[in-house]
Amino acid sequence: MSARAGIVVTGTEVLSGWIADRNGPWVSQRLLELGVDVGHITVCADRPDDLRAQLEFLAAQGVDLIVTTGGLGPTADDLTVATVAEFTGRRLARDPEMGRTIESVIRSWRKYSDVDELPASLVASIDKQSLVPDGAEAVPPTGTAPGVAVPAADGRPAVLVLPGPPRELQAMWPTALATDAVSEALRNRVPAVLKTIRAYGLSEPDLAVSLTDAESTVGGFDELEITTCMRGGEVEISTQFPAEQSAAYDALAEFLLARHRDRIYSTDGREIDDLLIERLADRTIVTAESCTGGLVAARLTDRPGSSAYMLGGVVSYSNDVKIGAIDVPAELIETHGAVSEEVAAAMADGAASRLNADVAISTTGIAGPGGAVPGKPVGTVCIGIHVAGRDPVTVTRTFPGNRQQVRELTVNAAMHLAVDVLD
Amino acid sequence: MSARAGIVVTGTEVLSGWIADRNGPWVSQRLLELGVDVGHITVCADRPDDLRAQLEFLAAQGVDLIVTTGGLGPTADDLTVATVAEFTGRRLARDPEMGRTIESVIRSWRKYSDVDELPASLVASIDKQSLVPDGAEAVPPTGTAPGVAVPAADGRPAVLVLPGPPRELQAMWPTALATDAVSEALRNRVPAVLKTIRAYGLSEPDLAVSLTDAESTVGGFDELEITTCMRGGEVEISTQFPAEQSAAYDALAEFLLARHRDRIYSTDGREIDDLLIERLADRTIVTAESCTGGLVAARLTDRPGSSAYMLGGVVSYSNDVKIGAIDVPAELIETHGAVSEEVAAAMADGAASRLNADVAISTTGIAGPGGAVPGKPVGTVCIGIHVAGRDPVTVTRTFPGNRQQVRELTVNAAMHLAVDVLD
Repeated sequence: MSARAGIVVTGTEVLSGWIADRNGPWVSQRLLELGVDVGHITVCADRPDDLRAQLEFLAAQGVDLIVTTGGLGPTADDLTVATVAEFTGRRLARDPEMGRTIESVIRSWRKYSDVDELPASLVASIDKQSLVPDGAEAVPPTGTAPGVAVPAADGRPAVLVLPGPPRELQAMWPTALATDAVSEALRNRVPAVLKTIRAYGLSEPDLAVSLTDAESTVGGFDELEITTCMRGGEVEISTQFPAEQSAAYDALAEFLLARHRDRIYSTDGREIDDLLIERLADRTIVTAESCTGGLVAARLTDRPGSSAYMLGGVVSYSNDVKIGAIDVPAELIETHGAVSEEVAAAMADGAASRLNADVAISTTGIAGPGGAVPGKPVGTVCIGIHVAGRDPVTVTRTFPGNRQQVRELTVNAAMHLAVDVLD
Repeated sequence: MSARAGIVVTGTEVLSGWIADRNGPWVSQRLLELGVDVGHITVCADRPDDLRAQLEFLAAQGVDLIVTTGGLGPTADDLTVATVAEFTGRRLARDPEMGRTIESVIRSWRKYSDVDELPASLVASIDKQSLVPDGAEAVPPTGTAPGVAVPAADGRPAVLVLPGPPRELQAMWPTALATDAVSEALRNRVPAVLKTIRAYGLSEPDLAVSLTDAESTVGGFDELEITTCMRGGEVEISTQFPAEQSAAYDALAEFLLARHRDRIYSTDGREIDDLLIERLADRTIVTAESCTGGLVAARLTDRPGSSAYMLGGVVSYSNDVKIGAIDVPAELIETHGAVSEEVAAAMADGAASRLNADVAISTTGIAGPGGAVPGKPVGTVCIGIHVAGRDPVTVTRTFPGNRQQVRELTVNAAMHLAVDVLD
């Protein structure tokens, strides 16, 4: 029986959808990698009753560990530690050493000398942040909010309390894992294998048919926990299984490859970005973007060390920039329109020669909501690839969705076209 | 007593953190705008037992409506409708009309003529997707997965079942709201006012002190539900209150403005992007980006109609592009280094003159993890603003965090500097 965990994300700003939660997914992934079964993530506002209800719910599900994120700040709406102390039936006591740590951080941030007197309200918030349930282990802060690791006791699961800012939480994670409370709670974890197959342009119904068929032909299929996920035109087929079931997984992978070899581009978890970098070999790349407005360049500079292959690019949003900065012939735009394969080709060629690169990716399209013209509805996108010494390759696609979705789909399509052309 | 709702997000890919959930926040925001109190968002894998546990939990919290997202696909791991039917004690029956709708969508997608025979497994998945709990109302699909609205009955709350793909869910939302089951469940909603104050460069401890002080001086403070949220150097102070408490809110806003006038840049919810567009008036803008690699340009082309002011930009990632495409003097780079205010100024000036724009934003920095040099640690960023007829304005900042965080902080800093300079 493997270790089970639940995650509670607190914060009105997350519950209300004002910001996307980055902690639940991050913690879940870390626990998964450790071989911990994560059954539930719950999100609540900064309301003690709702937080208490979620803690009770997770305890009732029999988890060994509850990880909470958020609600450790100095503001009055930050109530996690007090609520967890009550949930675990422990008294709160000030940790003087923790108080001194927080105070010194704040003095340095807020330019107080060590002798300046702090405003009473600030002293109060430092006191509040240095409260620790008795018998619990404090996790030193990387910001001002320390974490707390409460050991399991009296039928209550262990609770690890971490701050909301992702950077602070992630920096504190290794120390938090090393606490007695957490390592004891996770002692039964069973490392599982996670494999990912990536496909592009494979429809969900088609994939569903294949998986249904695989169920009856692949031995040990039931031992595999398969999840399919679509985004931006990509399908990710993630499979988790105990190490001893790898034969079943290999059979599944073989089955899917036989069915969809033309759509599957990665069976080792590598993303299209990795393949593009590999296919570039020692060649350099640049971009010429209209509708994606810099998103392709941002994607190509996303990886550390990208300066080894990425030289830069031109965002030729206006026709004047297309003409002036990357030498797209004005008459080409007049004749075919800015959204045309002819212009896409000229953009890629022009960027490559102007910026002295071996390879260039270009995009021009109608991201919407406005801009549609007869024969070119919103979502119409032309993509061009220049490779030194070859004729440019261009395609026209029509993507569904709103402005943001069309831009996202275009970036992925451009990455895949580049990989195909460089193959 | 106002209408209360809970949201259940299903999907192993979300629970495992392989993709960020976009549905929970979106649905929560829509409900909030309607004046519905959202107490809980819960996330579970595609496991019926976990889903059932979460439905039971939300019912126990006394919500009037549960909205579920995901698990409606044709694949075997999509079990939401069956689980909800069981939870509400209703039998599942095939909705023939819905079956015909789904079949025609699939025939058109998969290029089957109306007479072609479909593979048995595909027919099976269509049958599966056309199952509706009896007494429930089907919500027509925009993809292949119809939604289901189950009315409240026998102490069970109403349940609205929607598909996982955000585009499908969002397109179906208006129809779903209009179902008898949902509109009846939400009849007690109490529209609340939501106001947002935005600040930049205001630390959370400082804000905490102000809010603590406001508590004792602002009448009606307790009627205001205040949430503070930090991201990318910004603070968002969101306050929700019943319309009749607007005097209390006005007093709070006044109090905060008096304290932090230099940091607060928006009291009407407008974002820095809106202010930049306003300050540009009829001027055009371009970008010259190194460390942000296109993210500033992407931000400036994010809004519909951005071609009215945004001409384009140059991603001058390599020094050759800085020199060749936007005329940064090579000796400037040699003397001061590529990450210097001198080079940032030259990049902005060069981009403005090369691309014929009135305003230019430039960024050059060390996003890391590598690239640090003596005196310029990872996170060191120089930003330049060119405004026609003025000397360029430049700043140097040192940002914390990983590569992605440094890039994000740089984009926000550049947007704010541009607004300040254009003031």
